[in-house]
Amino acid sequence: GRGRGRGVRPPSYLAFLAAHRPSTGCMRSAADMEKLGANPANSCPLTPLGFLERAATVFGGCPSVVYRGTVFTWSQTYRRCLRLASALSSLGISRLDVVSVLLPNVPAMYEAHFGVPMSGAVLNTINTRLDARTVAVLLRHSGSRLVLVDQALLPLLDDALRLLPTEHPAPRVVLVEDPHEKDQLRPAPATDLTYERLLETGDPEFKWVRPTSEWNPMILNYTSGTTAAPKGVVHCHRGIFLVTMMSLVDWAVPPRPTFLWTLPMFHANGWSFPWGMAALGGTNVCLRRVDAPSVYSAIADHRVTHLCGAPVVLAMLANAPEGVRKPLHRKVRIMTAGSPPPAAVLHRVEAMGFEVSHGYGLTETGGHVVSCAWKGEWNKLPASERARLKARQGVRTPGMAEVDIVDVETGCSVPRDGATMGEIVLRGGCVMLGYLKDGEATKAAIRDDGWFYTGDVGVMHPDGYLQIRDRSKDVIISGGENISSVEVESMLYGHPAVSEAAVVARPDEFWGETPCAFVSLKDGAAGVVTAAEVIAWSRERMAGYMVPKTVVFRGELPKTSTGKVQKYVLRKLAREMGPIRRGSSSSKM
Amino acid sequence: GRGRGRGVRPPSYLAFLAAHRPSTGCMRSAADMEKLGANPANSCPLTPLGFLERAATVFGGCPSVVYRGTVFTWSQTYRRCLRLASALSSLGISRLDVVSVLLPNVPAMYEAHFGVPMSGAVLNTINTRLDARTVAVLLRHSGSRLVLVDQALLPLLDDALRLLPTEHPAPRVVLVEDPHEKDQLRPAPATDLTYERLLETGDPEFKWVRPTSEWNPMILNYTSGTTAAPKGVVHCHRGIFLVTMMSLVDWAVPPRPTFLWTLPMFHANGWSFPWGMAALGGTNVCLRRVDAPSVYSAIADHRVTHLCGAPVVLAMLANAPEGVRKPLHRKVRIMTAGSPPPAAVLHRVEAMGFEVSHGYGLTETGGHVVSCAWKGEWNKLPASERARLKARQGVRTPGMAEVDIVDVETGCSVPRDGATMGEIVLRGGCVMLGYLKDGEATKAAIRDDGWFYTGDVGVMHPDGYLQIRDRSKDVIISGGENISSVEVESMLYGHPAVSEAAVVARPDEFWGETPCAFVSLKDGAAGVVTAAEVIAWSRERMAGYMVPKTVVFRGELPKTSTGKVQKYVLRKLAREMGPIRRGSSSSKM
Repeated sequence: GRGRGRGVRPPSYLAFLAAHRPSTGCMRSAADMEKLGANPANSCPLTPLGFLERAATVFGGCPSVVYRGTVFTWSQTYRRCLRLASALSSLGISRLDVVSVLLPNVPAMYEAHFGVPMSGAVLNTINTRLDARTVAVLLRHSGSRLVLVDQALLPLLDDALRLLPTEHPAPRVVLVEDPHEKDQLRPAPATDLTYERLLETGDPEFKWVRPTSEWNPMILNYTSGTTAAPKGVVHCHRGIFLVTMMSLVDWAVPPRPTFLWTLPMFHANGWSFPWGMAALGGTNVCLRRVDAPSVYSAIADHRVTHLCGAPVVLAMLANAPEGVRKPLHRKVRIMTAGSPPPAAVLHRVEAMGFEVSHGYGLTETGGHVVSCAWKGEWNKLPASERARLKARQGVRTPGMAEVDIVDVETGCSVPRDGATMGEIVLRGGCVMLGYLKDGEATKAAIRDDGWFYTGDVGVMHPDGYLQIRDRSKDVIISGGENISSVEVESMLYGHPAVSEAAVVARPDEFWGETPCAFVSLKDGAAGVVTAAEVIAWSRERMAGYMVPKTVVFRGELPKTSTGKVQKYVLRKLAREMGPIRRGSSSSKM
Repeated sequence: GRGRGRGVRPPSYLAFLAAHRPSTGCMRSAADMEKLGANPANSCPLTPLGFLERAATVFGGCPSVVYRGTVFTWSQTYRRCLRLASALSSLGISRLDVVSVLLPNVPAMYEAHFGVPMSGAVLNTINTRLDARTVAVLLRHSGSRLVLVDQALLPLLDDALRLLPTEHPAPRVVLVEDPHEKDQLRPAPATDLTYERLLETGDPEFKWVRPTSEWNPMILNYTSGTTAAPKGVVHCHRGIFLVTMMSLVDWAVPPRPTFLWTLPMFHANGWSFPWGMAALGGTNVCLRRVDAPSVYSAIADHRVTHLCGAPVVLAMLANAPEGVRKPLHRKVRIMTAGSPPPAAVLHRVEAMGFEVSHGYGLTETGGHVVSCAWKGEWNKLPASERARLKARQGVRTPGMAEVDIVDVETGCSVPRDGATMGEIVLRGGCVMLGYLKDGEATKAAIRDDGWFYTGDVGVMHPDGYLQIRDRSKDVIISGGENISSVEVESMLYGHPAVSEAAVVARPDEFWGETPCAFVSLKDGAAGVVTAAEVIAWSRERMAGYMVPKTVVFRGELPKTSTGKVQKYVLRKLAREMGPIRRGSSSSKM
């Protein structure tokens, strides 16, 4: 201030300060502040749907969706989505009606993520690997009014619809044909119920149906139901908007990425990235089938920059034979989530040149809300140590309000000791509205204390990073000790012959339960490695009570469509073996 | 579905499809959907304040704020902000009280952006270049209860406080000392009212005051008042959260940037980047004074990656003498906003290796909400053409709901012809709550039609990118034609001898108004270039009615603290010249 010509008076600072000491009775503005609030210009609902119109303006001529020989631009995708919304409206689909899709990662699947909610309807993506009975249950429960179905999945839908009770009005069916799948059964072209015909009836200048409130439902996703009946998770426009923005910031996705759809979009809407790609003008490379040759080819052909997948996808990439793997010509970034990745798998895939980010989320959060935010100083550590740190789920993403691990008995935060287990709880703008038609389950998950209870069990490390130990139902309780099946599995993955491992509780007469490991061995190891050897190997590496007392070799472990091991199948097998009786190796614990 | 062992039945598809044709009276779920809504876990208020705790966890040991020899880490900044919030609470500052700061970009300024609202108070950053009279007006209008003041600005505050009416209770004063400014007047150390003493009294484990609603006011910024009385713009936690996230996504700021504070944080809170840096764990490099040598040194010394500034900062970088400029060792990204950047300046600064992004926002939007999203195909164009495209303000950022240009008479969108002028209107989550204690101004800006009227005049180009032509009051109306002063200025910047140019209306007996240019010339050109030459040069390059009829040379143009030319000063000068009389060069129009 002195240099700018204001007269410098020689102030007596202490006198000055004394003159301006605490004053009471200021003319406070709090009351005037409180008069201000939401207004018509700032309270228009948050929604991710607006990303699409902007993408058409900014990236109009750039590729939006690529699938084999088909390439759409953002202008085209925008107009196709408006046509879809318009056509659905013309068919009588209205606000909050449910529209289901039974589709692999093809362009129609991408378009449904905008076109369906732009008609005011709620998008329900159905897991394509479910059996007909479950599909029927979901269609009935959701009250779905229309189904977009891939030609290859028509038999599945046919079976499902036949299982619907006759008094249940069947949803309308729209067939999505795939001109690139020559070997599939195809209907006669004379039907007006194909997807492309439907789009032709739609208006590309349609005024899309904006939500009346940002809390309006937009998405209905059924949980995979590894144990209980599937629950219908409902998300609103606001929640999806928030998780989309948060995921882009957290993963630091730059503009115009090339995103390979290795993650099924039916799985929690591809963790919000269908909307995120529109926000950034990315290119969505679609894949009907995910196997190592397709993925490596797509990475090379399309110069892929980003992809997502459960740890099983990472394992697939890492275990691909020499001839299938292709060198990476540029950095390819992978986001993995869905189940805890074994450190050994992270290590292998990073050694190949992939840059892995590890996140954690649930269908109930619409995407990842915790991630292993990487610290520069960790780069100095040995690779195996880096992988161990990266296997931790981490810290909340910037936009989440709070994440904690609590003792379910007391409700208090567990100590930050990396050992005391508790339930992971969280709160923030992208937590679901609730479970459709299931107030009881909603209340059990979203409690009056303001937290969403995930059902996942974890520990808090001293540095504030959390790590999942288990689903609460997967914890093995042996002689009063809680054993994390994930922890035992992680160690088994370190065995040179182990390809996959899953650990569940087996009844034990003395200990109540003891760990039972189901192991699939790498090629060449079958018949060479024995159960006794694996047990002996384990005993050198973990506390006695954690060592599997039973080891069962299997060709492949049963998995859900999203790569999660179906532990309830293994638990059933373990139960059927009957309890371990006294006198077994358990005496050495 | 066929390959996975489900029995493939030979379906008669047409029959199948026919069986599932439109059904009426489905068991729609809309009513059940409507039962779901906000709940305790997903409705916790959006706020940017939570970024800080996360930064302390993730980036605890990394530098947060650097100022000369002082370096703080994120752990330290977190604890200092908690101390500040705690100490303010202890002093009796409570929810929605106003706390003002009169600070340059020093660490305390950064801390105030978290610490003040963490006490529940509303942060009011005051432009340090205002005169004492205006400061007094703002303190009185805001009902400020406490002022954090830099030692160099104490005389200014002293003057301002003396101007307060005696019946007005003075705010409490806290002095922020700067140990690096030895030459400044300093108070005796024995006062308990210095900032560091205040922090010492605070509790670093303080439970910060969370907003009870995301619509709670958090920020009070007075508009620069180039023409009218300053208005107090109030933003809420939600708005600031949203503009922060949107700005990071739009500018694609990667994790852990090094951000140089060339933009005053008192200017619309540094366009939201104080909070953005906490979200990303960036390093805030503070500068007390912004001049070319300091900026070039800081870029080199701290390996700066990002900085923001009005176009005047770009001009300063471009016009720096040879000895001051330092080569850029890595890409430095600049966000410019605040006034339309002349294409010639963009061109020059990009030629030096800076990568410029151009945004547009207002104090009323809390940050940039429109930006010139760059298209890859533009990279093939010549540099001057690229600069011309980049000088356009562009398209809405991904999170904004809508931006449009409307004819103020009819309220309709103007044609996308790049020529028809209209007022820029917008809506979205980061539009202000309103003006404090000024319901009339609030109503004039935020209309019942749901739009915020910016007062800026622009055109919409055929490709959907908008460009500002003027503040509505700066438009020159000559013989019924609207002339954009910005457009005339942009052309004048193309004159090789012109350093700065500003064009305002001068009364004209015949045309009503004609353009009057105030020009500052480059070194060496003064006395060589004449007004007649500039007019002749202009006549070859623009429509006759746009050519300045008056050219006035000046050493430097009067500017606001944020680098905007004070056109009201120039307008007054132009008025004082008296009207142009008939017979002047206007006959050649």
